[in-house]
Amino acid sequence: MSALLKLEPLTKTAFAPFGDVIATDDNDWFPINNGTTRRYHNLGQVQVLGADGQAGISLATGGAFQFPLSIRMLERHPLGSQAWIPVNDTPFIVVVAPNGANNCPDESGIRAFYAAGHQGVNYHTGTWHHPLLTLSVPGNFIVVDRIGSTPNCDECDLSHPLQVDGSYLPGIGLTPATGVRLPVTRRPDDHNKRRQNP
Amino acid sequence: MSALLKLEPLTKTAFAPFGDVIATDDNDWFPINNGTTRRYHNLGQVQVLGADGQAGISLATGGAFQFPLSIRMLERHPLGSQAWIPVNDTPFIVVVAPNGANNCPDESGIRAFYAAGHQGVNYHTGTWHHPLLTLSVPGNFIVVDRIGSTPNCDECDLSHPLQVDGSYLPGIGLTPATGVRLPVTRRPDDHNKRRQNP
Repeated sequence: MSALLKLEPLTKTAFAPFGDVIATDDNDWFPINNGTTRRYHNLGQVQVLGADGQAGISLATGGAFQFPLSIRMLERHPLGSQAWIPVNDTPFIVVVAPNGANNCPDESGIRAFYAAGHQGVNYHTGTWHHPLLTLSVPGNFIVVDRIGSTPNCDECDLSHPLQVDGSYLPGIGLTPATGVRLPVTRRPDDHNKRRQNP
Repeated sequence: MSALLKLEPLTKTAFAPFGDVIATDDNDWFPINNGTTRRYHNLGQVQVLGADGQAGISLATGGAFQFPLSIRMLERHPLGSQAWIPVNDTPFIVVVAPNGANNCPDESGIRAFYAAGHQGVNYHTGTWHHPLLTLSVPGNFIVVDRIGSTPNCDECDLSHPLQVDGSYLPGIGLTPATGVRLPVTRRPDDHNKRRQNP
């Protein structure tokens, strides 16, 4: 039986230790383009470290997951920020943790947030986070992160798996299935992952 | 009577002299996140020049325009790329030009593209382009561009206005109204614009 991870609403304040929330929400804006466009300015800063790195824009399609979600590992990108912003109003679950001993997540500080379809996140450099967990339907995302040849993904398995059951927020139903995969052909990831624990 | 600007489909090849098309379309992908996510990698490169600049992620809401569109000026950002990616499947019109004499657009080379709702663009550094022209309904966009204090927007009026009537692509209807503005309060733009011609 996995320990339960309580789901929180994704707000700028609550998420500040881990990254930025990319959403209009209650953010200020100013007009551009002779008054025909509202600009919600600089909601997330793109961080790029290392001589061989440059920021790039990618797209991603995430397979649909359903509650309960099992959280067994987290990853981080030590050389740059990484933004995930849905383009078809797809909610997703964001699991993050502060850094702990041995350069693995501090498991006592793991938190889970419900990102509504109009909200994206920008993980700051080095923030431990779970890979994409799109809810219910496959989701298309804009990804903004560091492109470069230096390895930029650390992974740590958790000592004890956690479970997000989705029962803590109004309007999120509890459904039985989990982990619906896209039919993908296996090819190596580009990240040259480094596993922190064996 | 304005000269007519013929509308073209937005393809990677046709748009290459001006920037990147951000879309899955027929682009290659590879699996990440243990096979649960498809990544369409590095579709647009974020360019940032100048010591005070950093890439940032903003959101924007563009007021709805309708055909015929009148094109009277273009702008460019000399210190960085600028990406506009719709998040609610909103088509928009992209008008671009090569650089010409006196650091204003080469008006003989102006082109207009129809960006379908699933397509975004990333203007390369210095590409002359028209401000956002969302079609028919207001559109929400993710913007990735240079954030910094150095002026980064040049504007040029065209010697002769051009008109995009929307009649050149199948499925794009010709509607009479034009220029529906959002109710915005006027405040200064952040760009410290430099007008190239008086």
